[in-house]
Parts: sequence; C-alpha cells; structure tokens
Amino acid sequence: MLSKVGSYNYHIESYACDFTGKATIPVIVNCIFQAATAHANERGFGYDDIRKDNVAWVVSRLSIEMSEYPEHDENITVETWIEGVDRFFTQRCIRFIHKDNRVIGYARTIWAAIDIVTRRPVDILAWRPDLADYVVPDQECPLEKLAKIPPVNGVEPSMGYTVRYSDIDINQHTNSIKYIEHTLNIFDLKMFKEKFIRKYEIVYLIEGIFGDKLKLYTQAASENEYLIDTKKGEESICRSRILFHPVIAGLTRNPMSAVE
Amino acid sequence: MLSKVGSYNYHIESYACDFTGKATIPVIVNCIFQAATAHANERGFGYDDIRKDNVAWVVSRLSIEMSEYPEHDENITVETWIEGVDRFFTQRCIRFIHKDNRVIGYARTIWAAIDIVTRRPVDILAWRPDLADYVVPDQECPLEKLAKIPPVNGVEPSMGYTVRYSDIDINQHTNSIKYIEHTLNIFDLKMFKEKFIRKYEIVYLIEGIFGDKLKLYTQAASENEYLIDTKKGEESICRSRILFHPVIAGLTRNPMSAVE
Repeated sequence: MLSKVGSYNYHIESYACDFTGKATIPVIVNCIFQAATAHANERGFGYDDIRKDNVAWVVSRLSIEMSEYPEHDENITVETWIEGVDRFFTQRCIRFIHKDNRVIGYARTIWAAIDIVTRRPVDILAWRPDLADYVVPDQECPLEKLAKIPPVNGVEPSMGYTVRYSDIDINQHTNSIKYIEHTLNIFDLKMFKEKFIRKYEIVYLIEGIFGDKLKLYTQAASENEYLIDTKKGEESICRSRILFHPVIAGLTRNPMSAVE
Repeated sequence: MLSKVGSYNYHIESYACDFTGKATIPVIVNCIFQAATAHANERGFGYDDIRKDNVAWVVSRLSIEMSEYPEHDENITVETWIEGVDRFFTQRCIRFIHKDNRVIGYARTIWAAIDIVTRRPVDILAWRPDLADYVVPDQECPLEKLAKIPPVNGVEPSMGYTVRYSDIDINQHTNSIKYIEHTLNIFDLKMFKEKFIRKYEIVYLIEGIFGDKLKLYTQAASENEYLIDTKKGEESICRSRILFHPVIAGLTRNPMSAVE
C-alpha cells in the first residue's frame, strides 16, 4: 500500500504569476487540486476510478492560510493527506513547503462525492469503505476547521459577471477556481501592492451553470477582512472570506516563519 | 551544449479541462509557454537571465493548429525549437505529440525582446548574438507563417470586459492567455459541443493595462471562421482568427491523423 501522505513538487510558472511576480491564490488552489488528483489517482479513487460508479468528487469548502508565497520560477512542495471521512464528506489537508524546508502554509478542503446523474450526494462510507484506510488522523494541520461564512446583505453589488465557456468545468458546472478568481477581481491593484492574502476561505453552496448572471456583494468585516457573497438573484452560490496582511516594507518576504 | 530541440511532457489536469473533458486552447497555450520557458531557461535566455539586462520576452503572434486535443488525465509531449532570429523577433515552433507517438498539432509563436523600462523593442542580434546558435532552420513545422488578421469594423460589440487583477501578468500588462480566454467566451456551449477549434491565431498589437475597458467585435468570415477584434475605444489591442471544425458523430477523436 502506498504511503498515506502524498508529496508533490510543482514549478511556479512566471506567466501564471500576478504583477508582483508571485503565485496567486488561484495558482495555489491549482497546486492543491493537482496534488489531490494525483494522490487520489495513485490510490484508486481518482476521477476515472470513481466515474465508473457515476460518481465525481466536488469540493465543498476550502481554506488556505499562507505566511508567504513562492515566486516565479521557484518550486513548491505540496503534501496532502486525508484527515477524516464521514458519511457525506472527506476532509483533505495540505501542507506547503518552500525552499530550505520552510513550511509556508496549510490548507483544508472538504469534498463531497456526487452522483453525476442525480447530482445528489453519495454515502461515502457505504460506497467506498476502503477510503477509511487512507485516513491520517494524527498528522498536524494547525489551521482551524472551516467555519460558516455569513451572507452579505443590504449593499449594492461590487461587480457582476456572466458564467461563460471558460468558467465551465468537466462536470458541466462552474469551475471552483474560477469563482475564486472572480472574487479577487473586486480589488484594485493597489490592494495587492500593499497587502498579501493571509487567508482565503470559500464555501460552495449551489452549483453555477452556463449563462448564470452572478453578482458579487462585498462587506468589509474588519480593516483587513472582506466577506464576498457571490449570488444569483437572491441565492448565494458561494461565499468567501479574505483576510489580508500588510506587506512589510523592505522585505520581499513576509517575516512570519510559518502559520501559527 | 544542450540539444536545440527541447522536449517536455505535461499532464492534462481534469479540473483545467472544459465541459467536453478535453484540454482547451488556453491549456495548450499554457503548455507552449511552459515549454518555451523551460527551453529558454535551460539554455541561458530565460526570464531571470534576461531580466539582468532589463529585458523581457513578449509574445507578439501565436498560431496553433490541432487535429485533436488530449483529454483529462492524458499526457502530451511538447517539442519546441527556435526556427529563426532576426533583429526584432524570434520565431519559435512547437510540435504536439500524443499517445502512440501521434503528432496532433503544431504551433508557431513570434517573440519580441522588450526593454522593461522603456517598453521599446531591443535589437536581438546586437543584444544576444548567441541566440543564433540555437536556431534549427530545417526542422519541419508544416504550419503556414502567421499572416495579418484584418480588423473588424461596422458591427456592434459581442461582449465587453474590464481588465482586472487576474488579467494582469508579471510584466504589469494584460496576460496573453487571458486575452485568448476572453475571446472564447463569446461563443455558446453549443458551438463547442458541435465543433472543435481546428486553428487559433492571435496577433498582439498594444499592451492592455489594468482598468482598460475592452470590447470584442466579431465577424463570421466564413461558415466556420470567426474574426475577433479586441479593442480599447477605436484601437485594436489584439486580433484573433478562429477556425472551427465539426466534431464527427460517433468518434471521440477527430479522424484527421495530423495537421497536413
């Protein structure tokens, strides 16, 4: 049996970086999905393995906390393991390791197994009891469990967009990373010059489809904290919470050595 | 000295595929840029090498012709070499190889070297005469040289967008792949169900910046051919030509064995 923790190494491509020359949250989420896919494929519960059962993994919640970001042309090591499996969700943790073996961040993701015909959740414990064999309950992931993200009401939308071809994924719904990308677009470049994203959380509530006209409602919860509610009419499609942290002048890296 | 032709292998991630489960044109362009970057880095003229001279490579034109697309979880081999270098441009060719060593496509790209301070083109032959050592003039690339793409006038815009954070690249200008992504968004999903992109061409004319309000003007040049002019006011920022080809019913792959 393969080790329970998978470790993967990715190169940060310069053309995928933002104007600061660093990896963005969507690039980091790409690394998470790439590692999760590889980890699942190697252990027999990847996309193609479970498609035979008419099942697909769908990400339900995601949170990332970074103390620094890799720069263009640098490598990042992504470790991933399953922390728990219950009836309707699996919890997958991720640890990011940068140069000199420095831990620069963690992520938590929660996945549902969806019947691709009915779009209803599948009872994971009944369907694939063997997944429990891969659980690593004692590996440290010092990132708090994903909390609920409150709705944003009573404000005008900051931005809107229509779900188009490039937003649609292999499951015929809106791509999880695209939702994240759109939420970052409500901010001015000045924000990303002065601050970096310390923590990004998203809860996916309803699957968006082609042609949906979505609106983003934003609320500043505290000086560096924003809630963004992506809605179709009155319904929340997904909700994000972004916590920024000032970039310290004269330092190209954030001085925090790791996420506490 | 390293071989003049570089060969790289990429895995097509399922979450990066479109709703048909295949790699998209932006995914293919990602592979091109990744291979071009690796090829240049390994040979001493990559992003970091030339940044010391205040120079950056900027893609000026690109054309891709595909007879089929790799599917999710498949691998693609990308071969790349420099076909020619002249005063202001280098021509880089790409060959895509799929399973069973089948050639499934080619691309041509034209790059300018830009002074990152003045944004003016650099005389490549004077700056880096050693690049000529890497030219492979006799490697076959059966894709016609990039022709001009005519403007689109006298029509209402099909779509518009504002250049935002996620559109801006490491050079502080609009990301070349993002322009392509936006052009594909003028089409309905039905188009991509019935047809695949046989050929995609783009000419980059002016660099877009944060906050630009761009409009896409579209003209059907023939049954399966579309011209898309991305404009800022009256000025063309980039122009694309897309040639579609019907998907043959009952075949998951396009029957053409390679690009003629």
